[in-house]
Amino acid sequence: MNQIPFQDYYPDDYSHCFGCGRLNDRGYQLKSFWEGDEGVCRILPEHHYSGGMKDILYGGLIASLVDCHGAGTAAAAKARELKIEMKPGAMPRFVTASLKVDYLSPTPVGKELELRAKVEEISGRKVTVNVTVSTDGTVHARGRLLMIQIREG
Amino acid sequence: MNQIPFQDYYPDDYSHCFGCGRLNDRGYQLKSFWEGDEGVCRILPEHHYSGGMKDILYGGLIASLVDCHGAGTAAAAKARELKIEMKPGAMPRFVTASLKVDYLSPTPVGKELELRAKVEEISGRKVTVNVTVSTDGTVHARGRLLMIQIREG
Repeated sequence: MNQIPFQDYYPDDYSHCFGCGRLNDRGYQLKSFWEGDEGVCRILPEHHYSGGMKDILYGGLIASLVDCHGAGTAAAAKARELKIEMKPGAMPRFVTASLKVDYLSPTPVGKELELRAKVEEISGRKVTVNVTVSTDGTVHARGRLLMIQIREG
Repeated sequence: MNQIPFQDYYPDDYSHCFGCGRLNDRGYQLKSFWEGDEGVCRILPEHHYSGGMKDILYGGLIASLVDCHGAGTAAAAKARELKIEMKPGAMPRFVTASLKVDYLSPTPVGKELELRAKVEEISGRKVTVNVTVSTDGTVHARGRLLMIQIREG
């Protein structure tokens, strides 16, 4: 298994994201990997990322992780489609056009989150991605993203 | 003007939110106020909340602020509808059922954000809220939330 995370292939000038930038030392530094055709990310948020109540995870964090992990999966899927030879800096760059999150049930604090992203469609520079957020196999939130590839050069 | 922020009326056990909880000393402690029939919040995010590029604000932060400010405005609007006498702990509590954010243009880092929330509909325990996120009068993102009031007791 060649398990270099998607985010390590972003160009340096695109690696400052608070959610997933390897050069942002104050951020979450989220890491995503392929498992078959799904992008998967596992992360254990710190306890201060609570919602209103101390034992429920902050919904804004869930939205943030959905965004970053979905973006990484969209980029990695586009790289696969284009048969780009993966090396640092080679990852296509995407921005989020729209993000929707449906919160199905409270997500507990203190549990590892599993985010699983599936690409629904690649249409030119547009990639649609669906993401689930689970703990212990229970899906607590579903995300849907429309990502747009940045024109290079 | 009686300018106590919406969030200061939440019960103590609902004040731990990373985004807007007055008892979360590691969070953003976002504050929202009425301006007529709009909930308004102004906040200057720190520079490390960047997106991929250093000078563009993190989209996950935008989604988080939309969520918290929209939730606060939904709760304050419901309190108005119910003619609740506002005092600490009196604010109705809401959870986010769904959050959608459309990103229209990059939001610069280093600028004060203005979030303006308008309640579209209150239908029993459901409140629909629309939020804009601007800097210097330019709207960079639009959010839409469906909030559900928690049954008390």
